[in-house]
Amino acid sequence: MTNDQTLVDRPRTRPALVEALSEPKGFGDQTLRDRRPDAIELLGGIPDPAVLPAEEIAAATVRVLSEPGVPALQYSRTPGIPALREWIAAREGVPSSRVLVTNGGFHGLSLGIQAFVERGALIAVDNPVFPLLLRGAELADARILPVPVGRHGLDVEHLGDLLRAGERPAALYTVPDFHNPSQGTLPLDARVELVRLAERYGFVVLADNPYRELRFRGEPVSAEPFNTSSHVLHVNTFTKTLGPGLRLGWLVLPEELAPDVLALRTRQDSHSSTLVQAVVAELLTSDPGLFDTTLDRARALYRSRSDVFAAALEQEAPGAFEIDAPEGGLFLWPRLRDDAVDADRLATDASAEGIEYQRGSFFPSGPGTDAGRRLRFAFGDKDEDVLREAAVRIGRALRRQTGG
Amino acid sequence: MTNDQTLVDRPRTRPALVEALSEPKGFGDQTLRDRRPDAIELLGGIPDPAVLPAEEIAAATVRVLSEPGVPALQYSRTPGIPALREWIAAREGVPSSRVLVTNGGFHGLSLGIQAFVERGALIAVDNPVFPLLLRGAELADARILPVPVGRHGLDVEHLGDLLRAGERPAALYTVPDFHNPSQGTLPLDARVELVRLAERYGFVVLADNPYRELRFRGEPVSAEPFNTSSHVLHVNTFTKTLGPGLRLGWLVLPEELAPDVLALRTRQDSHSSTLVQAVVAELLTSDPGLFDTTLDRARALYRSRSDVFAAALEQEAPGAFEIDAPEGGLFLWPRLRDDAVDADRLATDASAEGIEYQRGSFFPSGPGTDAGRRLRFAFGDKDEDVLREAAVRIGRALRRQTGG
Repeated sequence: MTNDQTLVDRPRTRPALVEALSEPKGFGDQTLRDRRPDAIELLGGIPDPAVLPAEEIAAATVRVLSEPGVPALQYSRTPGIPALREWIAAREGVPSSRVLVTNGGFHGLSLGIQAFVERGALIAVDNPVFPLLLRGAELADARILPVPVGRHGLDVEHLGDLLRAGERPAALYTVPDFHNPSQGTLPLDARVELVRLAERYGFVVLADNPYRELRFRGEPVSAEPFNTSSHVLHVNTFTKTLGPGLRLGWLVLPEELAPDVLALRTRQDSHSSTLVQAVVAELLTSDPGLFDTTLDRARALYRSRSDVFAAALEQEAPGAFEIDAPEGGLFLWPRLRDDAVDADRLATDASAEGIEYQRGSFFPSGPGTDAGRRLRFAFGDKDEDVLREAAVRIGRALRRQTGG
Repeated sequence: MTNDQTLVDRPRTRPALVEALSEPKGFGDQTLRDRRPDAIELLGGIPDPAVLPAEEIAAATVRVLSEPGVPALQYSRTPGIPALREWIAAREGVPSSRVLVTNGGFHGLSLGIQAFVERGALIAVDNPVFPLLLRGAELADARILPVPVGRHGLDVEHLGDLLRAGERPAALYTVPDFHNPSQGTLPLDARVELVRLAERYGFVVLADNPYRELRFRGEPVSAEPFNTSSHVLHVNTFTKTLGPGLRLGWLVLPEELAPDVLALRTRQDSHSSTLVQAVVAELLTSDPGLFDTTLDRARALYRSRSDVFAAALEQEAPGAFEIDAPEGGLFLWPRLRDDAVDADRLATDASAEGIEYQRGSFFPSGPGTDAGRRLRFAFGDKDEDVLREAAVRIGRALRRQTGG
């Protein structure tokens, strides 16, 4: 008998960082919840399958899997396969050495948080904010500095005031195009100033741009300030354009920041699926017009859905919502005009009517927003009849409170 | 003019953990280096394309991408899609709730290190060890406790001595089947004892089993002790059987350990590619015999290559190497019999002859091994003629020192 037989089993200890990871709450992330098949779910930024090039992806897969030696089934290198990096680099206007292929946009953000935010350091974020980012920030046990977001995205002037007052974030998170949830787009001069502040005060901008290609109105704003700064991680993804299920995105990395991100990535999952990379590279390069044709169809579809849904809401609940027609993306962010309406009760009543959406109160990263008076409706994957029916039910849910 | 104009740009600070990540050295990871097309590379555990079911994967892709609504291109949930989890669970003999789909085996290890090893804590590892694990351990800035590996894998008795002497690792890493690099397999009684020690002393076993299905001789040893303990992460992957390029693996997780791993994963890349998961699930379930048929072909091929290469080495360099014929996997681990041979010079001379292999000196995690007198040859993706030519050149490289 060995002398450890007399010990009581020792409990496992948990790393402090892991112990502090919060339970999911509120925001119904698609990766955490089951779908509710009996309801009309307006929850997530889900692209419509009708505008994803499924057949072309299948055909591209057959081609890459018939190549001699089948390189698509073998290891590749951490930054991504050359053909895909080169296509992305050409679209971004940067050298391909600055492109790192990721497993989607959120993966790029998580690498950025882990690579650039010291444990317990400060991270400045949109307010209101894409709520999953706050969960991501827990990877560094980061403290949160909320920065107001207005009709034109991040309030960069306010950020400048915070910095001059002594705040020293390690990173700043914002969605510059079709802000999630509030739908504004950051103007060019604010982008230039944001980058200047980052360089001046030594923080890294995490510019999260998943909806950028889905502009269906107005003029695009250049991403050049993000792609030419030594202090910006420009985060993008094929999620909203070719399909979330690919799990394929990219970072545009300044040369100075690339080694730390690569060092982390090689220690986590090494590289993104060679197969998925090879298929997408084949898809995009074998028919150079395919990506833009796909986007044109998607933009037309989402513009129409956005307009139909906004009009139907006004018809079914006249005057109840103030809605800024979005210029792109997959969301409406209406404000309840009547302060007497209880927004939480509305969400509950809507759920009883078979409508699930994200209540605005899930989105603040700090005080001072009107998010509690708002609703986030995702319309991307619902056809027009479904959106009209959704508006009918939302109107009914509203009348449970307002009568009439 | 704002008052920050007078500041000098503030340098970006780097998280201490990231700053401490070591530069790659020695071990030539496929994800970090370019191939050398003029050489015979015996470097990595690469499966032969001829025994990967490329055509069947292409056909499965076409089928999943023609499903209505194309769920393979949409978001899925963090643990993986049900069809794939269920197939894996049936093969492992566990409930599907205990399966988490990963982006390959190393990804599972990295999740385990991040979830269970406090920063700066101790991790016990094989000695010699799969060197990339030491890089992975840097994700927790872990201190390393080497545990000897003998002809039958990890020396569990020695581990017990270390624990009784007061060592308290947070985790232990070992490759139980066809140890990498030293090729032994851990017997059942040692597995049982290892698990008992983990439960007694409160550490998590990271049982890394990528070669398990590639047994081509001898009797398999049950993985049941790993799949029935509350203290084991059983790490596996389709990398060596269906192709590294899929980036698809899995963890068998005890219920007690699952929430922490899931909490981390949702904050990193959310979930593995739905497309790859759906394709592999379709591949495996549409033809229930396919996986075993594929494995039978792979085992026959690797047994034959192993035997041919060992015999050719003996023929070209008679008596120079002591080679234990492996019972599975993709490596030979010969020992240089003559202590007068300089192993580093041999590797350099072999490189000049157009042969690249991993020198044994890359593999120790601490003192006391004979790894410096050994060589790791990967034979998986080289046909017999190439292996015979490799043996000729290795013989020539050896004679540069020994004469004759």
